Amino acid sequence: MPCREPLRQRASICNQTVHGFHAPAVPSSDCDSMAGDTIFGQMLRGEIPCDEVYRDERCLAFRDIQPQAPVHVLVIPRKPLESLRAADSTDSELLGHLLLVAARVAKQEGLDDFRTVINSGLEAGQTVFHLHVHVIGGRPLAWPPG
Amino acid sequence: MPCREPLRQRASICNQTVHGFHAPAVPSSDCDSMAGDTIFGQMLRGEIPCDEVYRDERCLAFRDIQPQAPVHVLVIPRKPLESLRAADSTDSELLGHLLLVAARVAKQEGLDDFRTVINSGLEAGQTVFHLHVHVIGGRPLAWPPG
Repeated sequence: MPCREPLRQRASICNQTVHGFHAPAVPSSDCDSMAGDTIFGQMLRGEIPCDEVYRDERCLAFRDIQPQAPVHVLVIPRKPLESLRAADSTDSELLGHLLLVAARVAKQEGLDDFRTVINSGLEAGQTVFHLHVHVIGGRPLAWPPG
Repeated sequence: MPCREPLRQRASICNQTVHGFHAPAVPSSDCDSMAGDTIFGQMLRGEIPCDEVYRDERCLAFRDIQPQAPVHVLVIPRKPLESLRAADSTDSELLGHLLLVAARVAKQEGLDDFRTVINSGLEAGQTVFHLHVHVIGGRPLAWPPG
């Protein structure tokens, strides 16, 4: 399984692609524009490794390869939702599950306090257009949040 | 209805209490420690006005009185959840609803791109211990998010 590979190798591979527009093997138009065909979609399909911390039938959680704090995990749905803007009422239980998994992962990582962030759209900082919840903690977090 | 009152009056009243530990009429131990008895609980019960932008049977959304961007709205559940840490699987549909309302409010406010943030715990920046989703946008948002 890709996610069982050594961290260094995983980080190296991910570093070329995750949260970057320069994905040598995957044109950015494919990587970043269509939910289900992003780098996260590739991770979900096991085509690209990740530093996994949690998985279930509805989502996957893994470490961000550009961490902004001692703990920085992304929680993504298996369903290829492009962003929160693309979600509808049929997704509410799934969206809530992502937040509950975020809290679960934070606890698993030893955090009492943590921040969850979802960026919707480029101006808000979204770089991969597959909905993802950032779980950030392990240091005091400043305000405003960006 | 308190939320129909003039904005200036609302802001003035809110300014003494929301997101501050100095709430003259409500001791901070009451205001900040117990979900349901926070300043947000008082807003939900109509005891304190707010600059409301949306409401339904499960949540209320209103402008933050210390906005960090041109649009800064808080979405809170009517259920007095202290934070994401206090939520369980029976809350998943409610939590998802809060995110869907966040997206709805962002659109209503004219935003294409927006960031949603939930602080869980003091170190993460939570000051009112009634779960709330920050909806922030209207300017480019920096990274990291705090």
